[in-house]
Amino acid sequence: MNIDGIPYRSIWPLDDGRVAIIDQTRLPHEFVVRELSDCAAAARAIADMQVRGAPLIGATAAWGVALAMAEAAGDAALDAAIARLAATRPTAVNLRWALDRLRARLAPLPVAERAAAARAEAAAICDEDVAINAAIGEQGLPLLRDAWRAKGERGRLNILTHCNAGWLATVDWGTALAPIYQAHDAGIALHVWVDETRPRNQGAALTAWELGRHGVPHAVITDNAGGHLMQRGEVDLCLVGTDRVSARGDVCNKIGTYLKALAAADNDLPFYVALPGPTIDWTLDDGIAGIPIEEREAREITHLRGADANGEIREVRITPADSPACNAAFDVTPARLVTALITERGVCPASAAGLAGLFPERAA
Amino acid sequence: MNIDGIPYRSIWPLDDGRVAIIDQTRLPHEFVVRELSDCAAAARAIADMQVRGAPLIGATAAWGVALAMAEAAGDAALDAAIARLAATRPTAVNLRWALDRLRARLAPLPVAERAAAARAEAAAICDEDVAINAAIGEQGLPLLRDAWRAKGERGRLNILTHCNAGWLATVDWGTALAPIYQAHDAGIALHVWVDETRPRNQGAALTAWELGRHGVPHAVITDNAGGHLMQRGEVDLCLVGTDRVSARGDVCNKIGTYLKALAAADNDLPFYVALPGPTIDWTLDDGIAGIPIEEREAREITHLRGADANGEIREVRITPADSPACNAAFDVTPARLVTALITERGVCPASAAGLAGLFPERAA
Repeated sequence: MNIDGIPYRSIWPLDDGRVAIIDQTRLPHEFVVRELSDCAAAARAIADMQVRGAPLIGATAAWGVALAMAEAAGDAALDAAIARLAATRPTAVNLRWALDRLRARLAPLPVAERAAAARAEAAAICDEDVAINAAIGEQGLPLLRDAWRAKGERGRLNILTHCNAGWLATVDWGTALAPIYQAHDAGIALHVWVDETRPRNQGAALTAWELGRHGVPHAVITDNAGGHLMQRGEVDLCLVGTDRVSARGDVCNKIGTYLKALAAADNDLPFYVALPGPTIDWTLDDGIAGIPIEEREAREITHLRGADANGEIREVRITPADSPACNAAFDVTPARLVTALITERGVCPASAAGLAGLFPERAA
Repeated sequence: MNIDGIPYRSIWPLDDGRVAIIDQTRLPHEFVVRELSDCAAAARAIADMQVRGAPLIGATAAWGVALAMAEAAGDAALDAAIARLAATRPTAVNLRWALDRLRARLAPLPVAERAAAARAEAAAICDEDVAINAAIGEQGLPLLRDAWRAKGERGRLNILTHCNAGWLATVDWGTALAPIYQAHDAGIALHVWVDETRPRNQGAALTAWELGRHGVPHAVITDNAGGHLMQRGEVDLCLVGTDRVSARGDVCNKIGTYLKALAAADNDLPFYVALPGPTIDWTLDDGIAGIPIEEREAREITHLRGADANGEIREVRITPADSPACNAAFDVTPARLVTALITERGVCPASAAGLAGLFPERAA
């Protein structure tokens, strides 16, 4: 999407062989592009969360393999690069998937062909991600257009989102934000309520930043505010991303999503979830019982980073030094609270039948 | 309640005529007691939010009048003191109530008697607040005891609370925290989930601090986490305070309360609201349509204060400089989501009939 009028992806190859990323740890305070010149730099970018979001982590790992192959492309070098990159974020499914794909593509090739093939494969992974997200945007756009028409095209279409499911989490477009960007570009007068999304503030830091740079009207709200805004008629629909959807449509997403889905149901508002097909876990039915929830370190709650008056990024503690904190990173929204799922293949009910209809080859 | 074994109130008179408060703007990072020596200092303490919470604001204003009367007790001095204190927090109902009470008590008296009478009246206001809150604690205690018994007295009784309705918001005990302190002191093994309560973080800063100082086991969580904890069986009941309750039992409280009430209902958990009788607005039935919600400045969301590694309190910005923020301070939880109201007179359903049963003289 655009940064102040100039189109960007979240990762892109440079002519000199290096790969560029946006350092997301500096956002929203500074826009810093970093050039990755070797595999170690790519691994560091993932580990230090300069890049985050499942699709972007996968894409960065793929480019990391390509950077390694440019230096040495033998079997030992390939194994070492994959091992180094796999160790950065042990639980990231897309990371493993991208590395497996690179290994399958490169291992059978003569060593001399591997560097070029790795670059081509990394580029293909990026282009495929962009195509999937663009398709999610196209599938979701009619829902937003209908909501806008139902409102008589008056005022603004108010959409609430949680966390960052935008282009910064993918290679471009994003998942939940893809229909929003497409609707905005199509001239629908929309406005996004951005949940700040404690504790890591991906909404306040990343979603607000990317919407602002692309020119999409928005306002940051606390995670506490959505229910009140819905009650007062200030929200027309909710639209969020997801990390994992069970075969029956239970939605695992950033902690707090469930509360917004409850409020949407209580106020008869649509609650949409956007996802690429690979996010569906066909092995799992009951998401509430079956999805283990990552507990992250207390420090993410007790401490917080921001820019001081001089623009310097500082960390402050907001709790008593001796108070413990408990930090579950995700929650599961039961399918009954989800109005529909928006995938690259179409929109379906959050149910086993709905998902099977769109992905018959997987649901067997 | 206790601070590391020593009993405190949130405001108390000193032998030398001055009045002591705890500077709540320094919490949880520093425990600073400030001595107020004149009416101007009391007004500043209210305006700068060194004291906050409706009952404590009222008590501080009463002591402010007493400090003024010690210097000059004529009619002009009384008028000036009341005017100065009333201007500090224009919307605070308790502030007005306390000042009206002081005026009614002092105006008829000879000037020479006013200083002593003012001190006595301020002390009475404090003692009455403590008595009301202690009674709320006694009325609520059986609910907690029953929940603990229903659990077979195994593990710990997990109570979720939002914002700060503790002794720091009152003169002692608090409202929502009064039953919790009494249950803890009675030996019930309880544990409090403390919502951090963005944007002003009264949970993370004040509730966590006061529970910690009194020795009540607790953990700070983000406002996003409560629904997930309820879904996973980690919450036995919710207990919050309120700023205003309508005659039919709709509850206006800190923004985000409504979301927790929805989650409690979805998980079949009790959602209790503790309040002193004067919090009931008998003129109002429909709290959602009838209670105007204060919009506070965006800066409370975009900026945040905490202690840096050296213990210095610093403010940082967490949003993009050009992203707007929207800051509604309260929301309204419909009576249908409230299991019961806990008042100083007893526990009742959140309904017109329930409230009328406890306060027959007001409900007429």
